[in-house]
Amino acid sequence: MDLSPLAQILPEIEARRTFKASRIFTIEELKLKFHNGEERVYERIVGGRGAVMIVPYDGTHFYLTAEYAGGLHQYSLGLVKGKIDEGESGQEAALRELAEEIGLGARRISLLRAPVTVAPGMLELSMHLYLAEDLYPHQLSGDEPEPIQIIKASPAEVKDLIFKPDAPLHEARAAFALTLALHKIGAL
Amino acid sequence: MDLSPLAQILPEIEARRTFKASRIFTIEELKLKFHNGEERVYERIVGGRGAVMIVPYDGTHFYLTAEYAGGLHQYSLGLVKGKIDEGESGQEAALRELAEEIGLGARRISLLRAPVTVAPGMLELSMHLYLAEDLYPHQLSGDEPEPIQIIKASPAEVKDLIFKPDAPLHEARAAFALTLALHKIGAL
Repeated sequence: MDLSPLAQILPEIEARRTFKASRIFTIEELKLKFHNGEERVYERIVGGRGAVMIVPYDGTHFYLTAEYAGGLHQYSLGLVKGKIDEGESGQEAALRELAEEIGLGARRISLLRAPVTVAPGMLELSMHLYLAEDLYPHQLSGDEPEPIQIIKASPAEVKDLIFKPDAPLHEARAAFALTLALHKIGAL
Repeated sequence: MDLSPLAQILPEIEARRTFKASRIFTIEELKLKFHNGEERVYERIVGGRGAVMIVPYDGTHFYLTAEYAGGLHQYSLGLVKGKIDEGESGQEAALRELAEEIGLGARRISLLRAPVTVAPGMLELSMHLYLAEDLYPHQLSGDEPEPIQIIKASPAEVKDLIFKPDAPLHEARAAFALTLALHKIGAL
């Protein structure tokens, strides 16, 4: 596999402009000149210190979530996730979100993959994916509008969620995290 | 596996406001009242008719891409992708993007998964993932600033890209599409 095309000369940033587009979104406009002389204006959503997504596993079941997803206006099957706060490591953020969102602590937490991107054409956002094991009850209060419901699934059920075409798992990053978690525990 | 938490009563949209935040981004602000009475204001990026991502497979190799990703300002390993134009089906968009981006036609195209979301907390964006087979040369001109480079990878190499922690594949939706494609050809 020849990966040399990933080492192409980057477009030159001829000008850039950042503006707060709303209460939560900041947009950066980049005026780019590609190596071949072509010019384009790109826009991207910037900001934040990245985010984490966590796959909790108790030895027999994975803990997925049913959380309201504003982008879709529906309850969506996913995983505990959240932003990395200032001064936090990815692992610290993962443990905090796990306690805030579903009331669990983990004596063992391991990185499945980082960086993971979700829409690199337009989002600067980059994520860390973790596997959390040796779970125990540990509730921290967060800023959720309502308790996040847990959906427990066995490795075989998670495999179906990933591979069955009509499965109710739609989120690509959750599917990737679960794929890596199944592989890590030897179930894929 | 008890999926009933996905059927919770949706928050009520008490007010909504949409505004063009920039040349390409439109933001919708939702004032929500959750079932328990909690109120929140959410924001999401809206618009478009969805997008497609395509895994081309010639019987021995998958065709990945090295494309400039504005969100990260780097060349990113991914797959042919693009927006669905007005009046197009997902499959038509997939075939058009395949020809525009890497000069290929496909006599066989099959849906791997839809809908697939990437950041459902803040993006309305939903995607269709396709497997394209029986490939032949077929170039259409698109709006790319530069030719998109192809990176060919065997099924074994794609497996490494998915599972090796330090592999240069970062994009979750591409990883999910390749996982489904490997499974479909019987290699996972």
